[in-house]
Amino acid sequence: MATRSGPRSVKRRSRPGKRSVYFFGDGHARGHAGMRNLLGGKGANLAEMTRLEVPVPAGFTLSTEVCREFDRRGGKLPQRVREEVLAGLRRVEKVMGGRFGDRREPLLVSVRSGARVSMPGMMDSVLNLGLNDETVEGLAERSGDARFAFDSYRRFVQMYGNVVLDIPLEKFEAKLEARKQARGVEQDTELDAADLKALVNVYKQLVSACTGKPFPDRAEDQLWGAIAAVFRSWDTARAVTYRKLYGIPDEWGTAVSVQAMVFGNLGDDSATGVAFTRDPSTGEKRFFGEYLPTAQGEDVVAGIRTPHPISRASRKRGDPPSLEQAMPDCYRQLLRVARLLERHYRDMQDLEFTIQHGKLWLLQTRTGKRTARAAVKVAVDLVRERLIDRETAVRRVEPESLDQLLHPTLDRSSAPPPIGRGLPASPGAACGRVVFTADAAEESARRGEEVILVRPETSPEDIHGMHAAQGVLTALGGMTSHAAVVARGMGKCCVTGCMKLVVDSERGVAQLDGVEFHEGDVITLDGSSGFIFKGKVPTVEPELSREFQQLMRWADGIRRLRVRANADTPTDAALARSFGAEGIGLCRTEHMFFPPERILAVRRMILADTMEERTAALQQILPMQRDDFFGILRAMDRLPVTIRLLDPPLHEFLPHTEEEMATLAHDLGLSDETLRRKIEGLREFNPMLGQRGCRLGIVHPEIYEVQVRALFEAACACAAEGMRPRPEIMIPLVAHVEELRILKALVDTTAREVMRERRQRVRYSVGTMIEVPRAALTAERVAAVADFFSFGTNDLTQMTLALSRDDAGRFIPTYISRGILKDDPFVTLDLEGVGELIRIGVRKGRAARPGLKIGLCGEHGGDPRSIAFCDAMGLDYVSCSPFRVPIARLAAAQATLEAGPAG
Amino acid sequence: MATRSGPRSVKRRSRPGKRSVYFFGDGHARGHAGMRNLLGGKGANLAEMTRLEVPVPAGFTLSTEVCREFDRRGGKLPQRVREEVLAGLRRVEKVMGGRFGDRREPLLVSVRSGARVSMPGMMDSVLNLGLNDETVEGLAERSGDARFAFDSYRRFVQMYGNVVLDIPLEKFEAKLEARKQARGVEQDTELDAADLKALVNVYKQLVSACTGKPFPDRAEDQLWGAIAAVFRSWDTARAVTYRKLYGIPDEWGTAVSVQAMVFGNLGDDSATGVAFTRDPSTGEKRFFGEYLPTAQGEDVVAGIRTPHPISRASRKRGDPPSLEQAMPDCYRQLLRVARLLERHYRDMQDLEFTIQHGKLWLLQTRTGKRTARAAVKVAVDLVRERLIDRETAVRRVEPESLDQLLHPTLDRSSAPPPIGRGLPASPGAACGRVVFTADAAEESARRGEEVILVRPETSPEDIHGMHAAQGVLTALGGMTSHAAVVARGMGKCCVTGCMKLVVDSERGVAQLDGVEFHEGDVITLDGSSGFIFKGKVPTVEPELSREFQQLMRWADGIRRLRVRANADTPTDAALARSFGAEGIGLCRTEHMFFPPERILAVRRMILADTMEERTAALQQILPMQRDDFFGILRAMDRLPVTIRLLDPPLHEFLPHTEEEMATLAHDLGLSDETLRRKIEGLREFNPMLGQRGCRLGIVHPEIYEVQVRALFEAACACAAEGMRPRPEIMIPLVAHVEELRILKALVDTTAREVMRERRQRVRYSVGTMIEVPRAALTAERVAAVADFFSFGTNDLTQMTLALSRDDAGRFIPTYISRGILKDDPFVTLDLEGVGELIRIGVRKGRAARPGLKIGLCGEHGGDPRSIAFCDAMGLDYVSCSPFRVPIARLAAAQATLEAGPAG
Repeated sequence: MATRSGPRSVKRRSRPGKRSVYFFGDGHARGHAGMRNLLGGKGANLAEMTRLEVPVPAGFTLSTEVCREFDRRGGKLPQRVREEVLAGLRRVEKVMGGRFGDRREPLLVSVRSGARVSMPGMMDSVLNLGLNDETVEGLAERSGDARFAFDSYRRFVQMYGNVVLDIPLEKFEAKLEARKQARGVEQDTELDAADLKALVNVYKQLVSACTGKPFPDRAEDQLWGAIAAVFRSWDTARAVTYRKLYGIPDEWGTAVSVQAMVFGNLGDDSATGVAFTRDPSTGEKRFFGEYLPTAQGEDVVAGIRTPHPISRASRKRGDPPSLEQAMPDCYRQLLRVARLLERHYRDMQDLEFTIQHGKLWLLQTRTGKRTARAAVKVAVDLVRERLIDRETAVRRVEPESLDQLLHPTLDRSSAPPPIGRGLPASPGAACGRVVFTADAAEESARRGEEVILVRPETSPEDIHGMHAAQGVLTALGGMTSHAAVVARGMGKCCVTGCMKLVVDSERGVAQLDGVEFHEGDVITLDGSSGFIFKGKVPTVEPELSREFQQLMRWADGIRRLRVRANADTPTDAALARSFGAEGIGLCRTEHMFFPPERILAVRRMILADTMEERTAALQQILPMQRDDFFGILRAMDRLPVTIRLLDPPLHEFLPHTEEEMATLAHDLGLSDETLRRKIEGLREFNPMLGQRGCRLGIVHPEIYEVQVRALFEAACACAAEGMRPRPEIMIPLVAHVEELRILKALVDTTAREVMRERRQRVRYSVGTMIEVPRAALTAERVAAVADFFSFGTNDLTQMTLALSRDDAGRFIPTYISRGILKDDPFVTLDLEGVGELIRIGVRKGRAARPGLKIGLCGEHGGDPRSIAFCDAMGLDYVSCSPFRVPIARLAAAQATLEAGPAG
Repeated sequence: MATRSGPRSVKRRSRPGKRSVYFFGDGHARGHAGMRNLLGGKGANLAEMTRLEVPVPAGFTLSTEVCREFDRRGGKLPQRVREEVLAGLRRVEKVMGGRFGDRREPLLVSVRSGARVSMPGMMDSVLNLGLNDETVEGLAERSGDARFAFDSYRRFVQMYGNVVLDIPLEKFEAKLEARKQARGVEQDTELDAADLKALVNVYKQLVSACTGKPFPDRAEDQLWGAIAAVFRSWDTARAVTYRKLYGIPDEWGTAVSVQAMVFGNLGDDSATGVAFTRDPSTGEKRFFGEYLPTAQGEDVVAGIRTPHPISRASRKRGDPPSLEQAMPDCYRQLLRVARLLERHYRDMQDLEFTIQHGKLWLLQTRTGKRTARAAVKVAVDLVRERLIDRETAVRRVEPESLDQLLHPTLDRSSAPPPIGRGLPASPGAACGRVVFTADAAEESARRGEEVILVRPETSPEDIHGMHAAQGVLTALGGMTSHAAVVARGMGKCCVTGCMKLVVDSERGVAQLDGVEFHEGDVITLDGSSGFIFKGKVPTVEPELSREFQQLMRWADGIRRLRVRANADTPTDAALARSFGAEGIGLCRTEHMFFPPERILAVRRMILADTMEERTAALQQILPMQRDDFFGILRAMDRLPVTIRLLDPPLHEFLPHTEEEMATLAHDLGLSDETLRRKIEGLREFNPMLGQRGCRLGIVHPEIYEVQVRALFEAACACAAEGMRPRPEIMIPLVAHVEELRILKALVDTTAREVMRERRQRVRYSVGTMIEVPRAALTAERVAAVADFFSFGTNDLTQMTLALSRDDAGRFIPTYISRGILKDDPFVTLDLEGVGELIRIGVRKGRAARPGLKIGLCGEHGGDPRSIAFCDAMGLDYVSCSPFRVPIARLAAAQATLEAGPAG
């Protein structure tokens, strides 16, 4: 999508005459939408909108290259850039009327950040820049509204003080509160011009007290300060966190757009708002948005006032009048612009607008964030509307986001009456213990607890907590508040604007309509309805939309990689097939050993002293395994089912508690002491590197023999009923081809025996997990015996990184915070290390046996980035948990599209 | 040395006219010494000796290709070969006189195996072939000695029955005993011709009873049977075991030599013996050997009769007369032949001879097996005698064998009086618990116990037990008995021919001159003197001979690879340097943490709750570490010393017993319960893959900081005293270059700080272990930061093979017995797997940083085959335990020679 900018050294050598500042206004613009990398999303779109003759206040954009240059020069703007900025200002003055810093006709500007991709709330902006004790008078005169002028001035000093000069907002708010108290009023709007003027002076005193310098009065000084602050804000902790979370490179930098101010707070014929060209929650094609009369843009996004609906259709009983009702002309013009922009960009747009004295100005357009449900519907609808093709639709949906469509929602039929309702800001259901701070959320999540983060409102400082929580509930904020936008992006359930909720984070208590919650109490959220429930509410399986099925069919038509599921039971197998799995890539037979009615036989088998005792215990297990296999093979009739023979160290099956020990000792007729000694004898120092996997099969061939017999008896029974079972027997933990050779012979012998007994023929193959580095390194030898390979990337990651999944918790947090690990290697394949082994394994394996079938069956089989790698490596399939099958199907299709036309 | 034979398909296409049988005799031979691969060592040398006009009985050799053809044809000789054999027989008859199977002038032959390399006792032979009820009469007439003829006939039937027809020897021996008892005699020699004739019939009845067929009377049938038996014997279990032990490929096959018999048991003017051109124990240049008058060759080797000395010089008081005294002419001729052969082959020879009616015949010559001490002396002496050059001398000594020169010998000064004496068959000292069977020896060794195998005599069936034991003691057999030859080859201490020893393996008891031993009693052997001691006797360090030092200097002049030692203490460092170590390749700092006076501070450090507590505990440890480092750096002045920072999981340092726990709880002022919880909290599921190595340094930088500070304080102190310390700091368990980057910065900062404080400059470097597969796979990134690499092949083997060294014992025996593993991968590098990672690591590392210094510091650093690989990979050095340094020096030189002239 984006071309990468060249290395630093090249840029430094770039012509000194190269442009740094890009003007837009009055239907003309130097930039355009294709210059996103240089102008940021916001700047590029402002230029593009201007070219489209959408009413956009004039301005100019300092490019992202300037950001890097600024950084290199230790926070200084080169003279050349300063000159271009001043030239740009002159041109804005000409288009918009007024002059920057001029007493009589003051031009005010906003200074905003804009990175290559949208980072909502993460970057700082300064509005109303250009105001000082002189220009404020001009503004008052020109607008005929002194209160507006001083309110703007007050907001500016506060914002500048906070954003540019790093003074905490609370300090300004305290002064504001004090003034309101002194005046005996409750609302800001009740303060008059004189109050606000006095407040400006109080603010300025605060600034000089905090910084030791007077507040900058010259408009130009303000501008340089604000531009520098925006560039600096690229490196604030919260911006860095966001980038880390979303994998955005630090070197991209931000652009700065300086734009003439227009005012939504200029009286009753002014307003400000945001709008989506479609419903960002459902994807429905209906104009959707919110606005606030007599407000500046920040008021809507910050969630301090709950906004009004934009259209009559979306207005609910009791809501204030919609924009469509209050300003029908502006609404119609907005609708026209929205349609134009959506058709132009061929995607759902998220617009910011301001109405100043009845004139509509567009401040921004960008691709609208949406829920997975909306993403699917919008993508499919846009194909139907012939705006995009199927490939584009498939590319448009983030595979990972499908997760929210596939997980259960609340079972409303058995839900208790809700105790409250907020805005359905991000769909899905979530249940967990209440926490009141982001840190508490993160801490609980680390302990494995599911929590709901409850906040008055959220801010970028809360992102890590939102990430850790199952769901988010806020008292303030609308459908486009910070909490809502971020939660939708994360695919988290979120309810916002629950006005009756009173949150006291300090005391760790919240009240909702008389019901009190304490930290640790369980609540349930329904992000699709906005309802809030006390306690845990049961859930129902999701029903997948027609659009979802359509998109999946398109994806299936595109992808090269096959998708199987990891499933150990007939139920899971059926579920996986319903999600589109094309077989089972990993059936872990050990999971069949754990049910309470079987475990005794298993323990008897493990603790047997002689092969006879062991065989007798295995005979008890055989019919149970056979029934399981039968169910699985039936559920996957005609599709391949990869059965992995017993893998874990045997002592995993042994009892751990005193009580279990006593029961087992009694069952086996052993003394406690004897049993304890036997169990102790099986203990291993490093079970992960001990007697497990095929080593069990080599040392105790009778175990594998019984498993293979059970499998083939089941397969023959399927065949007898007219099914076409396709078992693939997989030998785990092979490090040396000889292990595979010996065990393949065992499988073949047993299979032939059973098929002869049952007079059936079953097509089968015998292959191996590649999960020991040595197997990958000697793949050419292993492939000489294996019918197929399946990379077991969980273990392969453990061995390659020398990282025990069970023990890594002690240092992984440090590793992530210090940036040593970018991703959890058990979630996203470590491409440099484990990926290199896969590359070697595939190359050597296929060199020895051209066309060798190769799959992957670790957790990574459901991770889109890992799937892209598997596709690039030419694997035949990935296998993942049933719920991730649709994600994998979509990710595989995207990988095919990324790779370009097939050869 | 040997060219490999081509693939099977090529051989099958070889011309049908190709020769299979190679004649030798009367100064003419088709073969020669260079045809070892085709004719086996024995056949090639018989041909060569014949060409040298050494008196050798005529014969012919069936080539090893026939062995493979025999095998392919399922145990049948092709007609072409049969015809060539018969033609060969005719020629032998012509040269030697007599006719095969002829009643009047019977020619008898021996049929012997002969592989490419000598496999003593492993292959079967048949002597006196051609005897039957008719020819025996001819032999009796011709020799004028009916007793001799029937004794030969008896021996032949017994040997043929055993070797060709698989009848246990005991059955024949029982018949012999019965006959002796019936005749009331004790010695075989007391039986007369009639007895023996009767015995032949008894034997024949035994054969038909066992096989269901009559004994083959036709000489030609006997010959075909014997040839087939020799070929078949290539695949007996004991031959397979020997090959596995010595790494001899199964496909080499054996040749068969058929040779006219000569007789050493034809009366007082006949004898048989073996001789070495130099002393195989010491290497001294003195003719050395043993003989038995009136005996066949098997009698000497089998150790049933204790032989007489060959020369007057080696005769001890009470010995029977030497050959030099008894048959001075033959002795002089033998001496001449021996000198001729040694000069011809340019190496010490091991000869077999027979004297028949005063005429000397040589039956075999081969390179003599020798002790390490002898190998070194012979090699150096041969250079001085200008028979070989230095390179050849260096090639001649098996590096592994030096082990026996480097280990302690008995401290005779503090030894108690010995309880007995045998022959000093293989030097060195050994101490252990008595076991009476090879199986018991193997079993005890598996439990880690040191044992002495005590046997009446040994046979090839005992090889696995000899391998497992520390030393071997036999009641029977001479210096060239099976036990002696095999033990010398293995470098095991061995005492043979201890005539006063009576061994009752059944009852598990032995008596030596009135002292009784039971299984489990400790005894000590001195293989250099032959003395046997009750209990454990103290030992002294070995003194290295001048020849040894000379050979090492030559090796040093040849080798490319440097050799360092693994040493953790000043004492070990000094020892290593005395053995020629060129630095320390691995100093494990954790070993400094274990002494009782330090461990409390270490435990305090580990269990600290705050960084302050931890730092305080570390401050206690610092001066101790500094002293250690000072001692090590001083011992290795001017040589590089690689210090590995703390590596093992911290819980390894914690107490394990109840008592230690209580003490520690008291010391730390904690309750037992609290301490237990803390320790439990540090427990890991897979410590090998847990928080260890550089992960400790990342999470607890203060630990590494203190270690680095201690090191640099010590290095500065050395520098202040005028030394030139060369510390190399090595970061363990790096998986990701970022780990190294962070910790290198920590080392650099601390080093600069200390050097500034002490006003000293110390040259140092910072590198990393490559012991995690990921580090090897991403070596190009790691090399960007590392000053050097050191392959830690112990851990690399564990990770690459997913094999915990501590847990592998449960399945490794099965793996070795099933042939899955050829060598213990912790002893000899797994070249296919781990070797491949090393290859990748070296290639990528040097690509990123040309000339990157790379070493290896696992146990493999002292293993000759692994060293050859390291040399081929272009590593800069290997590091091994001090005692293996000379082995590594020699192995490195041999690797250089193998690789050919340097580019």
